[in-house]
Amino acid sequence: MTIVMKRFGTLLYLFLAASLIFAQEVRPVKNVIMMIPDGTSVGVYSAARWFKYYNGMEDKLNIDPYFTGTVTTFSSNAPIGDSAPTGSCYATGVLQQTGNVAIHPEVSDNDLFPVDASRTYQPAATILEASKIEKKKAVGLVVTCEFPHATPADFSAHHYNRGNYKALAPQMAYQNIDVVFAGGNSILTDDIKKHFVNNGTTLIQNDKEALLNYNGNGKVWALFGERGLPYNIDRNPDKVPSLAEMTEKALEILSKNENGFFMMVEGSQVDWAAHANDAATMIDEYLAFDEAVGKAMAFAEKDGNTVVVVAADHGNSGISIGSRDCPGYDKLSIEQLFGTVSKYQLSANGLESILVNTKPEGIKAVFKQYTDIDITDEELETLLASKNYKEVDYMKVASSNNLAHNIVNILNSRTCFGFTTGGHTGEEVLLASYHPQGDVLKGHVKNTGLNQYLQKVTGLEISLQELSDKIFAKHNEVFAGLKYSIDKKDPDFPVLRVKKGKNNLEVKAFSSVATLNGKPFDIGSVTVYIDKNDTFYLPVALAEKL
Amino acid sequence: MTIVMKRFGTLLYLFLAASLIFAQEVRPVKNVIMMIPDGTSVGVYSAARWFKYYNGMEDKLNIDPYFTGTVTTFSSNAPIGDSAPTGSCYATGVLQQTGNVAIHPEVSDNDLFPVDASRTYQPAATILEASKIEKKKAVGLVVTCEFPHATPADFSAHHYNRGNYKALAPQMAYQNIDVVFAGGNSILTDDIKKHFVNNGTTLIQNDKEALLNYNGNGKVWALFGERGLPYNIDRNPDKVPSLAEMTEKALEILSKNENGFFMMVEGSQVDWAAHANDAATMIDEYLAFDEAVGKAMAFAEKDGNTVVVVAADHGNSGISIGSRDCPGYDKLSIEQLFGTVSKYQLSANGLESILVNTKPEGIKAVFKQYTDIDITDEELETLLASKNYKEVDYMKVASSNNLAHNIVNILNSRTCFGFTTGGHTGEEVLLASYHPQGDVLKGHVKNTGLNQYLQKVTGLEISLQELSDKIFAKHNEVFAGLKYSIDKKDPDFPVLRVKKGKNNLEVKAFSSVATLNGKPFDIGSVTVYIDKNDTFYLPVALAEKL
Repeated sequence: MTIVMKRFGTLLYLFLAASLIFAQEVRPVKNVIMMIPDGTSVGVYSAARWFKYYNGMEDKLNIDPYFTGTVTTFSSNAPIGDSAPTGSCYATGVLQQTGNVAIHPEVSDNDLFPVDASRTYQPAATILEASKIEKKKAVGLVVTCEFPHATPADFSAHHYNRGNYKALAPQMAYQNIDVVFAGGNSILTDDIKKHFVNNGTTLIQNDKEALLNYNGNGKVWALFGERGLPYNIDRNPDKVPSLAEMTEKALEILSKNENGFFMMVEGSQVDWAAHANDAATMIDEYLAFDEAVGKAMAFAEKDGNTVVVVAADHGNSGISIGSRDCPGYDKLSIEQLFGTVSKYQLSANGLESILVNTKPEGIKAVFKQYTDIDITDEELETLLASKNYKEVDYMKVASSNNLAHNIVNILNSRTCFGFTTGGHTGEEVLLASYHPQGDVLKGHVKNTGLNQYLQKVTGLEISLQELSDKIFAKHNEVFAGLKYSIDKKDPDFPVLRVKKGKNNLEVKAFSSVATLNGKPFDIGSVTVYIDKNDTFYLPVALAEKL
Repeated sequence: MTIVMKRFGTLLYLFLAASLIFAQEVRPVKNVIMMIPDGTSVGVYSAARWFKYYNGMEDKLNIDPYFTGTVTTFSSNAPIGDSAPTGSCYATGVLQQTGNVAIHPEVSDNDLFPVDASRTYQPAATILEASKIEKKKAVGLVVTCEFPHATPADFSAHHYNRGNYKALAPQMAYQNIDVVFAGGNSILTDDIKKHFVNNGTTLIQNDKEALLNYNGNGKVWALFGERGLPYNIDRNPDKVPSLAEMTEKALEILSKNENGFFMMVEGSQVDWAAHANDAATMIDEYLAFDEAVGKAMAFAEKDGNTVVVVAADHGNSGISIGSRDCPGYDKLSIEQLFGTVSKYQLSANGLESILVNTKPEGIKAVFKQYTDIDITDEELETLLASKNYKEVDYMKVASSNNLAHNIVNILNSRTCFGFTTGGHTGEEVLLASYHPQGDVLKGHVKNTGLNQYLQKVTGLEISLQELSDKIFAKHNEVFAGLKYSIDKKDPDFPVLRVKKGKNNLEVKAFSSVATLNGKPFDIGSVTVYIDKNDTFYLPVALAEKL
């Protein structure tokens, strides 16, 4: 009987497991990895897969077994998304406007779904913040753009303007994130560096060896380049790590936390190459991202307690395989479609940086060297007349394009990819999802739904909305009845001063360190100052300090 | 103890069920429905969803919960697919060339995967044929194109040339298919009609009432229009059924078979509208298809023993939401993106058919009536100069476009959809899949993989390859050692004559009826004659007749 009951118990568990699968329940896990190939339209996956096959590799992407559906990503007031609001929606579940970074949007005449005017400008807590604050997980960001660029900022900072790095960068530093691997050395400030010393963050700058050999237990930032990393196709592998190498190192560090981790990995520059309609670089950037997907999936499959969700934040460029400029569209061979593009050795920007320093008589040879293309005399003339080439006759270049633009036109005239725009597009993006018990995110979902899934697998006890109200309350509500003032001597970093009896509280904008009677303390989250409504957003609990 | 054992049994079953899910086994089912929205790129789903929402409906497609991955569809020698080979690959598992209908392809220099030269021109047995011949299932085709058009032919006929309706149409008739709802009245021949009388097929022509009231137990063909049905947006609902109505009726009829059924439903004309870059019609055609998806999924969910697989056969037009011609791309409102297109009441072809009979002075008003567009004088002039408008000056129209083309240009100049081509494209297409026990087809698959899944869920005891060798053997092998000749008096329908002793066997091309000593008999499958190698393909078992 005991044995039967034991088996019964096992079977009961399996029965429950089976029921859960049929009921589409989502069981929480220890580790959550969100991966975003920025601006990756469906055609990029297809082109990358054929490209691999043409070049002698398997006709398979690492992401292939994990596709489960599609995601429609959009802004609060526009069906076509910008990275700032769409990434922010993945991070927070809140629809927002173009430019917004993890913040509640303004109300507009074009809102697609009702927008709560009472929350406008309130920072929206992110899944990264909740993982850290509520679940004591380690958190990390691994990207190839500069660190305060839209997508990484979406998960770790708050502002209505994605371009305001002065507000975004310090928030990211003061979040005390465990791992940040990115670009953006030029954006570091003395204050940020000082904070890294205070909170024990190891800062690695342009040192691939130091990153790969890092072995410590503390927080670590590794930055490469002044702004974004070079495109993967232009990357010097001796100096700059690949996204896959950074992802693997981040997994090694973050997985030491006994409470698990949340990590966001972005293939940041598929989007940039798509804006430029640079097909070879789009393909290469996606493949670099796909290698990182391989690392994440291998970790998750082995770990057995990790969820991975992969989804672009929006389409870009309307890339298609085949174009009206290539006749005989449905009989083109793989050689015709992928032979030429396989010979491009640099991005258009990479080639530009060489050509800009090449004498006119050398241009043809250099172009041939890196692309295998024999440019025509007419094309040479166009290149020489590029705005940023050393053309003496100003009149001749005034209305011309940059070199990179003219290079792309030459590259694309030899291939059969179609592009509808140099901007974002509104098609749904592909969704891939791994869950150790099979509770994957699937079918068609909205970007809001993707965030709800992240909240579920993280096992949050309070919603992100509730967390937002806890850590991003308005200063005039938190300190209602007290004497307070905002000091704007430094307009970029206003300081809120609150007085109660003999106690003086000073809260600086975009920081997690405040002072009580001159003594600094950690407030557990970042403060956000919004000029438009002259309001500090900060933890409700700060009131108890006074 | 008995109760415990009973529960144990139930739980054991559930345990096995759970194991199967984890092992990705595919359990066979009774009924299989394959649905193909022809030429539907990802952007069409997205545009259709937003279109619905803009027009006051739910922002959800019927297909949405069922997305499970993507499919790469391609020809044997080209990454960009044509409907004939890609649909044929879904039907047969055999990669083939542009134009090929369910037949083994020629070897070419550009083959993507090895092609077996020894099988060139051998018809490839389809999942429809296997369902009927091997599993005694009812079979059906529901499409909006003329019945021998590429996709329906792919499942029920064989030839290297999709345009050869003389070879394809009779094969479809002689397959003795249970349900064919399609267009193509003009393609019926006297021979086909005679066969319908012989095999008890009810033929309904241009009679929606008769179709909807059909209540019999035999085979039924219902054809509407001379070639394809009208576009759904131009359809007169009193006269012509919707794809959803036809699908529902087919389900009602086919589900009477106790062995189950195989049905292929095609939204044939998303592709045609895409070739024309007619966005409003692409959206409307997809929505008409999506309604049919709703019917099929509702049937499957209720039935509990039905699999549904939905996948386009290739992309078309490179449609994107957003285009370089519309500035401010990522801030366009839903009104800006979907307001204008929502006012288009007819397809460009539908409008053309009215304008072509409209006097010049009435064109502006008619255009306004059906599109809400006030065309400019310049646009009016372009319309009047269209090749197929009544322009007297031949020189003026010699190099001009047709009216429909010029209409589309005007429609598209008011919207923000991007198109890269008027032809097919090579991006992977979306895959949706339903299986009662959750054994769905998922992740990224090739068109060959999709066919393997269909074979599995159909529970075939022999593979389609083996079936091909059984029913499509070469006449010179089947009748080796005997006296035979091919009579080509009717070059479209050669007749094979075989003699053994006193017995004379006559086999007509593209038929399932042969004669032995003048007496007709059913050979159980269709014969195929290929002129290129002067070969009849027919059942091995025919040799036993002599």
